[in-house]
Amino acid sequence: MNLSSTMSDGGYTIIYNMLSLGIASMLFTTVFLFVARERVLPRYRMAVMVSGTVTAIAAYHYFRMFDDFKEAFGPEGMGVVAYNVGYRYVDWFLTVPLLLVETVAVLALARAMQTQLLVKLVPAAAAMIALGYPGDAQLNVFYQGDAPLWGLLSTIPFLYILYVLFVELGKSLERQSAAVQRKIKELRLLLLATWGVYPIAFIANMNATGFDETSFVLRETGYTIADILAKCLFGLVIFTIARIKSAEDSEEFAKAEYKD
Amino acid sequence: MNLSSTMSDGGYTIIYNMLSLGIASMLFTTVFLFVARERVLPRYRMAVMVSGTVTAIAAYHYFRMFDDFKEAFGPEGMGVVAYNVGYRYVDWFLTVPLLLVETVAVLALARAMQTQLLVKLVPAAAAMIALGYPGDAQLNVFYQGDAPLWGLLSTIPFLYILYVLFVELGKSLERQSAAVQRKIKELRLLLLATWGVYPIAFIANMNATGFDETSFVLRETGYTIADILAKCLFGLVIFTIARIKSAEDSEEFAKAEYKD
Repeated sequence: MNLSSTMSDGGYTIIYNMLSLGIASMLFTTVFLFVARERVLPRYRMAVMVSGTVTAIAAYHYFRMFDDFKEAFGPEGMGVVAYNVGYRYVDWFLTVPLLLVETVAVLALARAMQTQLLVKLVPAAAAMIALGYPGDAQLNVFYQGDAPLWGLLSTIPFLYILYVLFVELGKSLERQSAAVQRKIKELRLLLLATWGVYPIAFIANMNATGFDETSFVLRETGYTIADILAKCLFGLVIFTIARIKSAEDSEEFAKAEYKD
Repeated sequence: MNLSSTMSDGGYTIIYNMLSLGIASMLFTTVFLFVARERVLPRYRMAVMVSGTVTAIAAYHYFRMFDDFKEAFGPEGMGVVAYNVGYRYVDWFLTVPLLLVETVAVLALARAMQTQLLVKLVPAAAAMIALGYPGDAQLNVFYQGDAPLWGLLSTIPFLYILYVLFVELGKSLERQSAAVQRKIKELRLLLLATWGVYPIAFIANMNATGFDETSFVLRETGYTIADILAKCLFGLVIFTIARIKSAEDSEEFAKAEYKD
């Protein structure tokens, strides 16, 4: 019995289960975060709600990708439908700017400072994703095999985002408590580590001609694990920071939520 | 009229109804726990919400397994699709660490103590599940028939979890009331009894070559009953502990919730 019309059973099973893991992770982080928003002070709820919105958007795209994958490669699909990498880019185009919004929102900075950071981070994140897509989808807009050029263009806003997060945001961290500073540094490292997976997958597929199963399996697995860490784990760390800051801001909150 | 293309009608009906029982149990425990969270003090709500998240994740996977089972064995499926044991492992990979999170959360320990327990329990639980999968799915990673090796590897983190729960957590129980101590002991016994079903099912299927209906029916039935006890009943005991502790912590709560 063959599981797939065009892939090995092993490769098919891995991607199938990874995409389902993606759905489950995104969907139930969403539910948890939306309900758990009341376990932080009102001023931190926006950050938690944006985190839940990010995972909700991703859950929708993982449902789409799961069905699309079964249609494209499953035993009943017979390879008529091509697997649409666009779902990932549409997802990232919406979620990556929002991830930066939740990061800034949880700090509860002065409103002017917040705006100043977001007008830099949000357009840069959107540009980073938009410039990556023509390369990853191998659209060959400028010339045959121009994927490396798109990868390079996409790296410019990426480096700018890192500059803003590590240098400009770094300055505003001084006013936060030691516990929050430690968590924010964890958050940035998580961002750096998980966002690093995307260019690696991009480069690995950059020169692919036609369909290569091994790199396809690696790419989809890598993207899915990175997505789960960059959205679910990231959102839960945001929630933890919101809890710590709530307890710091209000003794009443700390007493109601913790026993010690 | 045949119910299934490849199984006896009896075997097919048992699994079909068990999987539907799984959906119903998981789904409505989730709904109940999320609504009932407000019937405990704020500091215990996280434990109740995590319990509801666990059953929600399991509900998703039971829906998937139910559909997958019908496609794989139902009269219209004609055996084109293979039944995917991966759903169970993806489910456990997410829910088993969370079951330990809810257990620790409901105790409302000092935060340092809580972190100390979770950094041991969560990775061990994830490792236990990840090491079980290659054996149960008979992937033959190292050599043909290496399932017993994976079972053995998976047992190491299992024993470590038991050590942490019975020895390390045991120490922190001294500060709890007699009623809570009794419930926690029930909880641990429930965990031990239900988790014990998994290795038995694992061992029963370890040496299976090809499809054997009797062991398949036993495995799916055993896994489903164990899941319902380990997630729904477990979550409801967590909720009960949260109620007892809420009443102990606050006279106002006790007076509002109970008449005596």
